[in-house]
Amino acid sequence: MKFDYDVIVIGGGHAGCEAAAASANMGAQTCLVTMDMNKIGQMSCNPAVGGIAKGQIVREIDALGGYMGIVTDRTAIQFRMLNRSKGPAMWSPRAQCDRGKFIWAWREILENTPNLHIWQDQVKELLVEHGEVAGVKTYFDVTIRARCVILTTGTFLNGLMHIGHTQLPGGRVAEPASYHLTESIARHGINYGRMKTGTPVRIDGRSVHFEEMEIQEGEHDYHKFSFMGRDRQLKQLPCWTCFTNPEVHEVLRSGLPDSPLYNGQIQSIGPRYCPSIETKLVTFPERDQHQLFLEPEGESTQEYYLNGFSSSLPLHIQIEALKKIPAFRDLAIYRPGYAIEYDYFDPTQLYHTLESKILPGLFMAGQVNGTTGYEEAGGQGIVAGINAALKCSGGEPFVMHRDESYIGVLIDDLVTKGVDEPYRMFTSRAEYRILLRQDDADARLTERSYQIGLATRERYDHWLSKKDAVERIVSFCKEFSLKPALINSGLEALGTTPLKYGCKLFELINRPQITVKNIAEHIAPLKALLDTLTDRRDEIIEAAEVLIKYHGYIARERIIADKMQRLESIKIKGRFDYKNMNSLSTEARQKLEKINPETLAQAGRIPGVSPSDINVLLVLLGR
Amino acid sequence: MKFDYDVIVIGGGHAGCEAAAASANMGAQTCLVTMDMNKIGQMSCNPAVGGIAKGQIVREIDALGGYMGIVTDRTAIQFRMLNRSKGPAMWSPRAQCDRGKFIWAWREILENTPNLHIWQDQVKELLVEHGEVAGVKTYFDVTIRARCVILTTGTFLNGLMHIGHTQLPGGRVAEPASYHLTESIARHGINYGRMKTGTPVRIDGRSVHFEEMEIQEGEHDYHKFSFMGRDRQLKQLPCWTCFTNPEVHEVLRSGLPDSPLYNGQIQSIGPRYCPSIETKLVTFPERDQHQLFLEPEGESTQEYYLNGFSSSLPLHIQIEALKKIPAFRDLAIYRPGYAIEYDYFDPTQLYHTLESKILPGLFMAGQVNGTTGYEEAGGQGIVAGINAALKCSGGEPFVMHRDESYIGVLIDDLVTKGVDEPYRMFTSRAEYRILLRQDDADARLTERSYQIGLATRERYDHWLSKKDAVERIVSFCKEFSLKPALINSGLEALGTTPLKYGCKLFELINRPQITVKNIAEHIAPLKALLDTLTDRRDEIIEAAEVLIKYHGYIARERIIADKMQRLESIKIKGRFDYKNMNSLSTEARQKLEKINPETLAQAGRIPGVSPSDINVLLVLLGR
Repeated sequence: MKFDYDVIVIGGGHAGCEAAAASANMGAQTCLVTMDMNKIGQMSCNPAVGGIAKGQIVREIDALGGYMGIVTDRTAIQFRMLNRSKGPAMWSPRAQCDRGKFIWAWREILENTPNLHIWQDQVKELLVEHGEVAGVKTYFDVTIRARCVILTTGTFLNGLMHIGHTQLPGGRVAEPASYHLTESIARHGINYGRMKTGTPVRIDGRSVHFEEMEIQEGEHDYHKFSFMGRDRQLKQLPCWTCFTNPEVHEVLRSGLPDSPLYNGQIQSIGPRYCPSIETKLVTFPERDQHQLFLEPEGESTQEYYLNGFSSSLPLHIQIEALKKIPAFRDLAIYRPGYAIEYDYFDPTQLYHTLESKILPGLFMAGQVNGTTGYEEAGGQGIVAGINAALKCSGGEPFVMHRDESYIGVLIDDLVTKGVDEPYRMFTSRAEYRILLRQDDADARLTERSYQIGLATRERYDHWLSKKDAVERIVSFCKEFSLKPALINSGLEALGTTPLKYGCKLFELINRPQITVKNIAEHIAPLKALLDTLTDRRDEIIEAAEVLIKYHGYIARERIIADKMQRLESIKIKGRFDYKNMNSLSTEARQKLEKINPETLAQAGRIPGVSPSDINVLLVLLGR
Repeated sequence: MKFDYDVIVIGGGHAGCEAAAASANMGAQTCLVTMDMNKIGQMSCNPAVGGIAKGQIVREIDALGGYMGIVTDRTAIQFRMLNRSKGPAMWSPRAQCDRGKFIWAWREILENTPNLHIWQDQVKELLVEHGEVAGVKTYFDVTIRARCVILTTGTFLNGLMHIGHTQLPGGRVAEPASYHLTESIARHGINYGRMKTGTPVRIDGRSVHFEEMEIQEGEHDYHKFSFMGRDRQLKQLPCWTCFTNPEVHEVLRSGLPDSPLYNGQIQSIGPRYCPSIETKLVTFPERDQHQLFLEPEGESTQEYYLNGFSSSLPLHIQIEALKKIPAFRDLAIYRPGYAIEYDYFDPTQLYHTLESKILPGLFMAGQVNGTTGYEEAGGQGIVAGINAALKCSGGEPFVMHRDESYIGVLIDDLVTKGVDEPYRMFTSRAEYRILLRQDDADARLTERSYQIGLATRERYDHWLSKKDAVERIVSFCKEFSLKPALINSGLEALGTTPLKYGCKLFELINRPQITVKNIAEHIAPLKALLDTLTDRRDEIIEAAEVLIKYHGYIARERIIADKMQRLESIKIKGRFDYKNMNSLSTEARQKLEKINPETLAQAGRIPGVSPSDINVLLVLLGR
């Protein structure tokens, strides 16, 4: 043990775990410094992974060779594919997980990752030499040297929790906060601010009248998070839903004067799309009910998470309000909800690699960049880990474009637009949604990841064999000609109009009543082809069908993306002295100066830079 | 949720878990306040339960209806019965456990215990009204009221960790210490002091050259901790042993000037029988090697605990020294060993019920009473839980005598003699060792526990059926007459002298070569009797055989114990004004005044009270 590494990762949460694993798997000697090995990969808030747009990110992490999907599959106690009634761009996997087992699944993976060493300690200072990162100093008074440091501290930097008027220092309930580190980073000119998030009460399931709630069962089909096979291992459990009511709201309103959010105690901004129950009341005063989800925390625990009831109101208000809901009339909780404030750093001071523009060798990922969500954190973590390792090995930076992945959208948004509130991913943030589907994350990313040395040969071969099978189905459908006489009785049986003229099978599958599977019952050679699929049959058929049914949309979006890609290819960094360019608007000059975009396309996405500003630049570039 | 209980337990460690479970199972409305539900029953030091004299305590806890034995069996990854080469008084079960699963096994039990509510928070103040305990105040600013409060805070009260010159506040690594509570208790006249304990490095198993170590396999017979049946569920793993050497010692000695134990940084006293490696070097300078045990921390982790190498030497000294051992030449550790200082309270201010003599309603159990060890903590915890519940229900106090249990010995030692160093149980502390065996803890305690309402009917019936089976075997052996002609060939086969005259089977089993099982092969009716045993066959035969083979020793010790019991029955509390009794020695006057013993026997056990002082009291009592 020489305490001398290529890469140090500070923090063992969702960003840190992915960063450490990616860095080590890329061959960099990596040290993960975590305060508590028993909290590795801890789900600080709800015991669930995925959801709309977030589930796609997890699939992308998996396609790259990360572990969030594998850990989620291994510890899932309920799985659902959300938005199945919408188009495949909107399908999003989501799973409840066993909170305790999630930690141990991550630990087992990290403990057995070559080149990765785990060090249980706390970083108190960043070491900088000659203007570059040189390592860290810890509470145990150890100096750990490294060429790159990845900061993934979540809510721990100067963390302060609030429950009503009560304020408690800490990074999470029962865990100490991290002090001194923010200051040791900010000293070098890195801007930081405060953000806020919150978490709801945890309920003793024995006190709940489940008969007063709606049950929400999971799904039991072939869908899962990881492209690599793994069956569900744990007992599958339902979630439960109910609603607040005017009586609940009355009690909550009586607590507003003591709410740290509304009495000035908390100034920092929380996640807009994951508001506290008191914020919902204030924002939507006309609504007399809000839906709540009661989610199990594990296979064998009575602990339940009350999704939708995040709060930092005084404890007795939280309890009294909930008791007005029939299901909770005998409520017992393990602990109250609380809000937490923490430090984040301005992500516009980062490159797309998540390396600091100010301090070479410093990478940042996760909540510390102003995001919210495990998936957003993990997505940044794997990118930071990859790029830190590439920096050490002298490789080219690894950047994903906006038409390649939600992670690419996420990071481009962060470094281009910055944040003024916790950033959460939505499908609406992506302009090429039909290109960024949960089913094709492997098609988008596995080959690239294999080429840089992250995705394993096994994963790559796994993808190639799927790719081959999907292509065989699509080709068959493109080539196979249907004769009305032979197929029309089948079409009738499927409730769709008979053919007048012959056509390709490919065209027929565009009809909503037709699926690859149901039409195969009437086309023997297709059935025979499908029958050759022994492994991942349903997954392959789904992938092929999406490509066939949505080929028009996909092709159209691909054209737009490629057009935009040309602007992406116009590198402008270092070519302009923005502050003296009077032909630009004042705001554009300031913003371009600050962000210093890599490409003309990125310049166009900076808030405050108008299309006419872009035209000015185009003219100056002689285009 | 009214935050109004019969009993509050502060702390969710080994003492707190047993206390909370016992109190609730006795029918008292109980609230367990723990900082972190994910650390319930956390094994702060080695991941093992039991051992010499300690294993007996766990069997006693189980016989009473506690859970340490059940949790240990459920999570054991190695089981051994120590001292099998000695007499049955010395047999002691010991198990390695999976540290993570141990926590979740405890959680599952506690979460499902009726009358028990878990509250995740931290106590900062004891509430006292009219000179009696009234409840607690917490960090979340909750007032929880109760008639009794059980304090089981382990190393958390004003905890301070040491690694070389580095000092870190905390109750355990990565966990905050507990402040204010000591002071809020001491204010009422309760004496407190500081103690110290330590823990060794945790090793990354991937760095170990196991081929340089001796393997130590577990045993796979019928022995276990709980009298209630449960098979081992986890993968069974070996431990490993090696030795230090002069080179190791040289490195360690070079660190002594920086040792907090020897440079004045730590003044408080650590556990004599669990010394740090540096203390071993200083205490036994002539020894050039010490044995070390490398113990797995779980089924699926690379983390290993290095038993025998507890240390608070500087980190680099710990690492450099270990690297001089061949097995550790490529050592990687997850974290260093450290020492921790914490507050304890003088146990002589407690009754045998573990209730405070100063503050009615306050009970204390575990490390806070100056003991060391999970088993000692658990044993006190169950007694405190029982007595707190009995106090609430108006029942008679529950006290176990020294001839009844190791727990009785432990508590009597604590309240009678006090502590000046962490107290660990040994068989040598018990004067009636052959009465306090691991095999008969149920015989000693289950009926008593059932009578007070703790042991369940199921447990009691389970014991009665075993009792009946054991008695049938013993009776058979007492009554069955052997004829030389019929048995001698069998005896010859067993390598023992033939009989000249007939005798009872009971006498024959006293021979070392003879066991109930092997002689049964030659006595058909005995074999038939044993064959009727379908459930717990081996356990029952073992219990019967011990009673037969050791009946002489057992009977002799029983007589002595009963004689002493007569002194126990002479109540003297409140009958003497010790400080004015000039016929007593000055020391005896002071000690008797301080301890105020319940009985003449207890008076005789107070250090400094001589047999002649006891005679003075006897004379004054008119005996």
